[in-house]
Amino acid sequence: MFRSKIKHCRECGAAVEHRLPGDGDTKVRAICPQCGTIHYENPLNVVGTVPFWGADGAQVLLCKRNIEPRFGKWTLPAGFMELGESTLEGAVRETQEEAGADIEILDLFTVLNVVRVGQVHFYYRARLLSDTFKPGHETQEARLFREEEIPWEELAFRTVKETLEYYFEDRRQGRFCVHTGDIV
Amino acid sequence: MFRSKIKHCRECGAAVEHRLPGDGDTKVRAICPQCGTIHYENPLNVVGTVPFWGADGAQVLLCKRNIEPRFGKWTLPAGFMELGESTLEGAVRETQEEAGADIEILDLFTVLNVVRVGQVHFYYRARLLSDTFKPGHETQEARLFREEEIPWEELAFRTVKETLEYYFEDRRQGRFCVHTGDIV
Repeated sequence: MFRSKIKHCRECGAAVEHRLPGDGDTKVRAICPQCGTIHYENPLNVVGTVPFWGADGAQVLLCKRNIEPRFGKWTLPAGFMELGESTLEGAVRETQEEAGADIEILDLFTVLNVVRVGQVHFYYRARLLSDTFKPGHETQEARLFREEEIPWEELAFRTVKETLEYYFEDRRQGRFCVHTGDIV
Repeated sequence: MFRSKIKHCRECGAAVEHRLPGDGDTKVRAICPQCGTIHYENPLNVVGTVPFWGADGAQVLLCKRNIEPRFGKWTLPAGFMELGESTLEGAVRETQEEAGADIEILDLFTVLNVVRVGQVHFYYRARLLSDTFKPGHETQEARLFREEEIPWEELAFRTVKETLEYYFEDRRQGRFCVHTGDIV
């Protein structure tokens, strides 16, 4: 499994058992034999943007990662959605944090499942309001790329690659729509 | 806060501290003073369907809840997304579990944030392959409703109400598209 198993109860600290809860649930859960708490683990959302520049949207902003995983690889600005924010607010926050970029969100663009790691990735199309960036500590460099300049072999994540492919394809078609799918 | 605070470390059971991790993260996390584990809590995804019947899609399937919360209220089939499945697979599973309905998924229809409870709700449009249902233990009754029969005041969740409103509106327009938004 890609996440470490829960070993102790979050409520009382006792060692948990991994078994069916017996309430009709068909999944094995981490259950506390002391206080009865059932611990659920669920997929995480990653939220980000496709920040584009220029009236024709010919350039997109990528960030060179300064952290693991995929240190030194290029990514669209994105990160884990937090409690207290919407998918859109999270996407704006990550774009600000990772690229120091001011944007105006247009619409949801891709929703891509990465079942293997228990994640759903959301990318919003976003108009850049300036071409000056102030990347944070998670980013070595933030810069604009035309389609022919995209470092396709140096992209950090499959969802970034697919989202960029959809973006430039839709741009050629002259219309953008929501794309959904699974990374397998 | 709508979820109980983490009190003990999932790795070693020690009582956690709630503080900034000191790694650049700007959110307070539950941190184990004994083994150093940082515990993150993130939004949950709820996945479901708008199951419709007939070539004209005039009827939709609703389930009368047999569990809390909202016992006795009507809902579209939906539930928490699990690890090991995609949003689409989760939506199919919940429709099978709650309504015992066989469906063919058409496309993603709504993505609605419910920030107050830390959830994102996904509904897929789905064609019913039969009008015979075998609801599970979470459902008292599963039946088809025409628009004018929908029990609007007896719906279990705001995301269900909004999704049904979008469905019948799009049906009148003769075209379905993805709707996104926030429940505030």
